[in-house]
Amino acid sequence: MQYGSYIPFGSEKKAALYGVVDKGFVFDLATPALPDLRAALEWESLDGLNRRAVDRIAKGDGLKGEEVTWLSPVPNPDKILCVGLNFYKHAEEAGMAVPVRPSIFVRFGSSLVGHNTPVVRPAVSDHFDYEAELAVIIGKPAYQVSEEEALDYIAGYSCLAENSIRDWQRHTNQATPGKNFMSSGAFGPWLVTPDESGPAEEMVISGWLNGELVQRDTGANMIFSVAYTISYLSTFTELLPGDVISMGTPAGVGLAYDPPRYLKPGDRFEVEISGVGRLSNTVSQGN
Amino acid sequence: MQYGSYIPFGSEKKAALYGVVDKGFVFDLATPALPDLRAALEWESLDGLNRRAVDRIAKGDGLKGEEVTWLSPVPNPDKILCVGLNFYKHAEEAGMAVPVRPSIFVRFGSSLVGHNTPVVRPAVSDHFDYEAELAVIIGKPAYQVSEEEALDYIAGYSCLAENSIRDWQRHTNQATPGKNFMSSGAFGPWLVTPDESGPAEEMVISGWLNGELVQRDTGANMIFSVAYTISYLSTFTELLPGDVISMGTPAGVGLAYDPPRYLKPGDRFEVEISGVGRLSNTVSQGN
Repeated sequence: MQYGSYIPFGSEKKAALYGVVDKGFVFDLATPALPDLRAALEWESLDGLNRRAVDRIAKGDGLKGEEVTWLSPVPNPDKILCVGLNFYKHAEEAGMAVPVRPSIFVRFGSSLVGHNTPVVRPAVSDHFDYEAELAVIIGKPAYQVSEEEALDYIAGYSCLAENSIRDWQRHTNQATPGKNFMSSGAFGPWLVTPDESGPAEEMVISGWLNGELVQRDTGANMIFSVAYTISYLSTFTELLPGDVISMGTPAGVGLAYDPPRYLKPGDRFEVEISGVGRLSNTVSQGN
Repeated sequence: MQYGSYIPFGSEKKAALYGVVDKGFVFDLATPALPDLRAALEWESLDGLNRRAVDRIAKGDGLKGEEVTWLSPVPNPDKILCVGLNFYKHAEEAGMAVPVRPSIFVRFGSSLVGHNTPVVRPAVSDHFDYEAELAVIIGKPAYQVSEEEALDYIAGYSCLAENSIRDWQRHTNQATPGKNFMSSGAFGPWLVTPDESGPAEEMVISGWLNGELVQRDTGANMIFSVAYTISYLSTFTELLPGDVISMGTPAGVGLAYDPPRYLKPGDRFEVEISGVGRLSNTVSQGN
């Protein structure tokens, strides 16, 4: 199944909905008791949601995907944890040692827009870099879970443009500022459940800049696997339904070029992941 | 005024309330439309809350402070941003260079307990260190605000035990894991509005370990002031009502001793800030 969050074009209430995506249409699933995807994962579980989605598609009357504004699949996660330097070749191009533990920083939901909404280059920097990443969305509370059982806690996968403002990322050794400019990254187009996506190790993660392939690697080349990372994170914090883990970017970021190849207004950056989808965003200039 | 969040002893619903604290009593302010302090700051503003608090105290019928379980003053903030290395002597004892920009990492609300609730030393480490800090709570949305106007966005101040699991903090150069073990830190006892607390520069921040003074410095010795830090953070993210900024710890942490003086079960660590209050927590052993 595929689940997305959205606002229908022309909606006066501007309230976010969520629904199941099927054959280019989206069928709404929001109810007063389960108003967003995070609440559905929390209270209904993925099994319940899947059953309701099958019924809903059978009922028909969906909206065309082109008739909605897509939001982040989970617009209001409790937390978004990002793994830095998780591909050997990217650690090399960044001039960093291969980490012995996952390097973890945090993004806020406000730093991410949905599919087809422009990402914003901030006024204070032109060091705006792209990073194509696989996002993991948690489906049920995970605390102190082993690597062996970790995959059971996944609701699905999505694409994440984990874009960075490089100079602000390097103001100190903590990446937080450069990773949290408003609307600088993107998340979507929607969540794909593991039975449809297949395992992360078999996914091909690609970054496309204005139609040119600039990043490509497979999940099998991650330094820390999805299962290991979930287990590691769950040692110190409880992962909650709707939480997001972004699994690090392959080699080929703009910083690695000489001169660096940073995003400019009018550019388009796309994250494509086999079995998951293709997230596409143009770049606009902030003020 | 002083505002705290709490659960009355013996409350069957276990629902968090908030109220105004006066002369050892707490007077509830929660309403269906404004169920928590974050919502009150967001929808009613500090002025409205203050007016309602005056009326509420006049009506009487408060609970004794000893008859409630204190929670973090804002139990559900959108975000908690922490400044590392913000006192010269602490940067020196940590063996770190004085930063030229604030070093910013993130804590999740689940890593903090309220006043008088034990903080938890995790099973996986005995490198559990204390850090007495001043917490700033944001009162209204702050985006791209100047240093000159930054203080207008503050709802109040509180104490924060920004405790760290040192070995996990140093797994990589990103501090996130060592700063986010469940219930490892504390926040409270309550929020004090700026008209009562006075300015941060005049506050004396002290850490007490089992009654012994182990940390003490004044807000005037912060490398980055509260106003500068709010302005810096608001360059990249919108600070929201209820957001928390923890302003860094003075010299004297357990790590600086030889051998290190880490927290053990049964210890008591207290954060005292002149004009703000005294946050007290014992240490319990997690599993």
